[in-house]
Amino acid sequence: MAVVGVSDAGKTTLVEKLVAELKGRGYRVGTVKHDVHGFEVDKEGKDSWRHKQAGAWATAVSSPEKLFLVRDGERDLPLDEVAAEFFGKADVVVAEGYKSGPSAKIEVHRRETGRELLTKPEEGLLAVATDEPLDVPVPSFGLDDSKGLGDLIEEKLIKKRKTNATLWVNGKPVPMKPFVQDFIIGGVLGMAGSLEGVEPGKVKTLELKID
Amino acid sequence: MAVVGVSDAGKTTLVEKLVAELKGRGYRVGTVKHDVHGFEVDKEGKDSWRHKQAGAWATAVSSPEKLFLVRDGERDLPLDEVAAEFFGKADVVVAEGYKSGPSAKIEVHRRETGRELLTKPEEGLLAVATDEPLDVPVPSFGLDDSKGLGDLIEEKLIKKRKTNATLWVNGKPVPMKPFVQDFIIGGVLGMAGSLEGVEPGKVKTLELKID
Repeated sequence: MAVVGVSDAGKTTLVEKLVAELKGRGYRVGTVKHDVHGFEVDKEGKDSWRHKQAGAWATAVSSPEKLFLVRDGERDLPLDEVAAEFFGKADVVVAEGYKSGPSAKIEVHRRETGRELLTKPEEGLLAVATDEPLDVPVPSFGLDDSKGLGDLIEEKLIKKRKTNATLWVNGKPVPMKPFVQDFIIGGVLGMAGSLEGVEPGKVKTLELKID
Repeated sequence: MAVVGVSDAGKTTLVEKLVAELKGRGYRVGTVKHDVHGFEVDKEGKDSWRHKQAGAWATAVSSPEKLFLVRDGERDLPLDEVAAEFFGKADVVVAEGYKSGPSAKIEVHRRETGRELLTKPEEGLLAVATDEPLDVPVPSFGLDDSKGLGDLIEEKLIKKRKTNATLWVNGKPVPMKPFVQDFIIGGVLGMAGSLEGVEPGKVKTLELKID
């Protein structure tokens, strides 16, 4: 899901609140900041900086406590591609930005910005976090109402999940209708379940790469 | 593959040379720095830093030019798990460190360090980059011989690749013998090839996630 809003509406503050709320409910939360301006992350002179400067497409630093990765972009990745590539192990992904993407959105609104909402319900607007009453056809919450927003996210975006199959061919996602997903899931779980070390019926997640 | 050696032997410098050499040959190179001490990457006060501080398990910043990710570790990940999780799109991964792992290794040796080699051929030692002649049963190269080392890496580690299948169930890798891989590859490519938008015979890479 994406937290959207005009500049200075308080998007980062709302992301912080949602992360703390969802983490407190036991979920593993991933976040994404959409940055269209570019940024510097690594420090000049560090080994990883030297790797990247030498021409690496991607450089990671792995320690027992933390993992860091910087890699070249090819294009402005949509949120669902970032989530599929990096957040397969997260329960929920909260993004800041991505107002033009298809994800479910919570828009932050403040009276002093005095503008109309950026997003409409048909663009995925799920709720508004606002400091004044608004005439909108989606639920409204106060800017500090983490509990209300957490309940909504849990109900609409987390608990609804059933088993899904996501397929990428040659690096591009291939959309599949639910019955096609069920067919693929059944076939692959059937094959995997016959392997030594795999207990059929106890497979919660499966990832397969062919390359 | 991993570049190993004692402290100050020149591991980072050799990684830089190998990255530049392999990139020059047209490969997409990933690098990993193994860090057992922990590190700071993000800058205090930035939006992404605030996301992570609020309790996110993982935080990414995505821009058209660059993607950055920091996530919590659970344990000291072996190189092959880092490679499988983050470098699926790279042609070759060059790591600095990981001397006790199973990967192919190039050891950097300098006379002034005056010690024995850290690794033995049976521990995956593929070659030595050294500033003095050594009596070792693997090929030796000068410290600046990027071309010689590049030829060796290309021959031993890159061109050998054929189609592979890698399977993870519940987040753990499931080893598969080659004929089992071929069975899974055949089954999944058969199913995927019947989907709209997938041209059978033109599938170079495929990724499937079930969760």
